[in-house]
Amino acid sequence: MSLSIYFGRIVKRVREEHGLSQEVLADRADLNRSYVGEVERGTAMPSLGTVTKIAKALNLSPSALLARYEAYEQSQLENVS
Amino acid sequence: MSLSIYFGRIVKRVREEHGLSQEVLADRADLNRSYVGEVERGTAMPSLGTVTKIAKALNLSPSALLARYEAYEQSQLENVS
Repeated sequence: MSLSIYFGRIVKRVREEHGLSQEVLADRADLNRSYVGEVERGTAMPSLGTVTKIAKALNLSPSALLARYEAYEQSQLENVS
Repeated sequence: MSLSIYFGRIVKRVREEHGLSQEVLADRADLNRSYVGEVERGTAMPSLGTVTKIAKALNLSPSALLARYEAYEQSQLENVS
């Protein structure tokens, strides 16, 4: 499973934990709503700048958002093995 | 100061802490040597995929590398204020 798919799933999960719609997240992150959808589906590979915008829009530091992604990826790999 | 400049300085600092040349880092990260130079100078905005490759080539998780960048950015902002 690719990095962008795992990262996208975490963005979606954290967004939903905050009860935000894609529109609200996109607005907060100053991103296009359809692009947020692409990131969440894993069809777009965001830049570090976009990762930072999304993290801050979710009230997380970029490192904290990546730590969530790493923990999720690890849990998926353990399920497979 | 921009995100890519701060991030680039941390990549350079960690690389030098490991005593690696740009060539060795580029080779480990499966990146072009000149691109590593651009990232370090802050003239390129890496993707999440590239951040992950660089982090792993420096024996760090992506979140750990970003945490170093965030601490460095914070220290610079405190110096200015």
